[in-house]
Amino acid sequence: MRKEYLLTPGPTPVPDSVKSAEARPIVHHRTKEHAELLRRVSENIKPIFKTKNIVLTLTSSGTGAMQGAVSNTLSKGDTALVIRGGKFSERWAEICEAYGVNVIPIDIEWGTSCAPEVVKKKLDENSNIKVVFGTLCETSTGTVFPIKEYGEIIKEKENTILVVDAISGLGACDIEVDKWNVDICVSASQKGLMLPPGLAFASISDKAWKFIDNSTLPKYYFDFKKARKSLETKGQTPYTPAVSLIVALDESLNMLNAEGIDNVLKRHRRLADATRSAVKALGLELLSNSPANAVTAIKVPEGIDGIELKNTFDKKYGIKIAGGQAHLKGKIIRIAHLGYMETFDVIAGISALEMSLLDLGYKIETGAGVRAAEEILRNI
Amino acid sequence: MRKEYLLTPGPTPVPDSVKSAEARPIVHHRTKEHAELLRRVSENIKPIFKTKNIVLTLTSSGTGAMQGAVSNTLSKGDTALVIRGGKFSERWAEICEAYGVNVIPIDIEWGTSCAPEVVKKKLDENSNIKVVFGTLCETSTGTVFPIKEYGEIIKEKENTILVVDAISGLGACDIEVDKWNVDICVSASQKGLMLPPGLAFASISDKAWKFIDNSTLPKYYFDFKKARKSLETKGQTPYTPAVSLIVALDESLNMLNAEGIDNVLKRHRRLADATRSAVKALGLELLSNSPANAVTAIKVPEGIDGIELKNTFDKKYGIKIAGGQAHLKGKIIRIAHLGYMETFDVIAGISALEMSLLDLGYKIETGAGVRAAEEILRNI
Repeated sequence: MRKEYLLTPGPTPVPDSVKSAEARPIVHHRTKEHAELLRRVSENIKPIFKTKNIVLTLTSSGTGAMQGAVSNTLSKGDTALVIRGGKFSERWAEICEAYGVNVIPIDIEWGTSCAPEVVKKKLDENSNIKVVFGTLCETSTGTVFPIKEYGEIIKEKENTILVVDAISGLGACDIEVDKWNVDICVSASQKGLMLPPGLAFASISDKAWKFIDNSTLPKYYFDFKKARKSLETKGQTPYTPAVSLIVALDESLNMLNAEGIDNVLKRHRRLADATRSAVKALGLELLSNSPANAVTAIKVPEGIDGIELKNTFDKKYGIKIAGGQAHLKGKIIRIAHLGYMETFDVIAGISALEMSLLDLGYKIETGAGVRAAEEILRNI
Repeated sequence: MRKEYLLTPGPTPVPDSVKSAEARPIVHHRTKEHAELLRRVSENIKPIFKTKNIVLTLTSSGTGAMQGAVSNTLSKGDTALVIRGGKFSERWAEICEAYGVNVIPIDIEWGTSCAPEVVKKKLDENSNIKVVFGTLCETSTGTVFPIKEYGEIIKEKENTILVVDAISGLGACDIEVDKWNVDICVSASQKGLMLPPGLAFASISDKAWKFIDNSTLPKYYFDFKKARKSLETKGQTPYTPAVSLIVALDESLNMLNAEGIDNVLKRHRRLADATRSAVKALGLELLSNSPANAVTAIKVPEGIDGIELKNTFDKKYGIKIAGGQAHLKGKIIRIAHLGYMETFDVIAGISALEMSLLDLGYKIETGAGVRAAEEILRNI
């Protein structure tokens, strides 16, 4: 027997009741029954985003919703500001470039956040920036960005909107779409929403709809206007949606809303705090100077091979964690506390970290990490 | 208790073993385990397409793969020929137009097929046609098109490729991608593949890859070159795939390949023949003069309201069927025999047709349809 644990920052574990929902008989997507379902999840997801805006459900990975956000708001030759500090925030620039949008990048060191003043300065210098693309939680570095402060700056600009990738951040890191003036917030199913991958989401503000009205980039499958019309007039999607995942979403939203989004966020904060405290107690360092509550990136200590460390977690202890990407490959490990996660998922992750380090000959005080974690995890 | 039957041309019923597979623990998509899975399904799906070409797996509805076929092969201002004879073949033209591709349409009456000579003539008249977009089974009319003959014509043209929507056709209607010279064949999960919606597929020929090399239309999420590279070098997809559906696909492909694609097609032919024979025995007419083996479109007889007929199937007998779309709304009903379907699914559909017609006061010989169907269904 091999008992496995998924402590990766997406996909995340799916609760049994959500899996059971996924396996229910297939509902036809043009029926009244499905319209009720789609309308219900489209409402029930709003508290998770903390928004009154429409939230579109797309059948794709989160990247599909990111492409939708670019191709629906911009036109060829337009200029966008991209705050880049990791693999996923770089994706915004890649998509813009694929569509002929000029990118002004703000490049920050991986593992650091970006101060609001830097964004303000770029906006003041370039009055033609139509969209600022940001990231709530940069998954590749475990870093959370000050979206609220970006929103404060951008709400004053009539000709600029704020588009945020909250794919791994939603439901783990604080975000208040409406209060923080996030015009488009995209997310996906396989993170804080506790579902398998296959669905993406986009909340869209009134201000953003005006940009969408003027956008001329080509779009079809991810056409937001068509999706809005279909949802509002018929409770449908323009194209066949991933029905079984939407049924599962209905269940996972029931769970999240029963807990209450503020409690969900508090739980993630507690798990993240405990993880960070354990890491420090073991004499290790965090990669990020602005660590996110979704995933903790830990610097692999001197003398240890990060890939071997990750493999020890997996092969010996049955725990899947993530490694570093690009230039951080082998230099960091990333342990997620995202989605269907509680106390003993963190304990398992920290315990495996201790044992794996010991296995690789690294000297730590056995149990010191777990002890530090428990001190925080007790505070429920 | 309400026992329900899904006789719609997609989504189609999902076998229990496939549903169970879907509910298995989530596998991380960047692991060796998932690479083996993706490589295996990418091979095991080839017999269904009857191809040695690469088959890409995309997380989207079939429309996403259609958009991919357009945006990966063409450039702005290019010219494409679209054979239109129903709601879904019209989609090819809509996508082309959204991307600034000039469309030369061949418009045929809904419910009829398009003779190969008509295609040949258009190609001879317009030497600049880069892509011919066709449809194997036009779901909105239950019509099968002579793709083989189109392929014969197009294979001679160095500067033209054939792209076929086999979304509802694959696994039900004959298609031999390689022998018939189909350069790109797109399909989706929720039809003959017996899965929930959420995955799309595209087989791509060597000839098509040359077009893809020269295409400049914007693409990112549906970038075929990136998907090919990711699959071939790492057994991965560029973006997080719908893992649970891929696990389910593994199971459904096992079932289909155990039966053997030729037997699968024979089964669909038998079910379709029985349905058509029953319809005629009841004195009703088929809509199509080239009826497909995936779904049968039946003209609603004089004096009967088609929407009421469809509702009687559903509300009284628990059977979901499809109605007519656009100008055929209320004029036809469509009964599918597609995917996880056998003898008694057809018997149920025909029996419900008889009883619903009687309920609405239409005179038929009770049992005549089932009798005619049985005569054919016995020939296993």
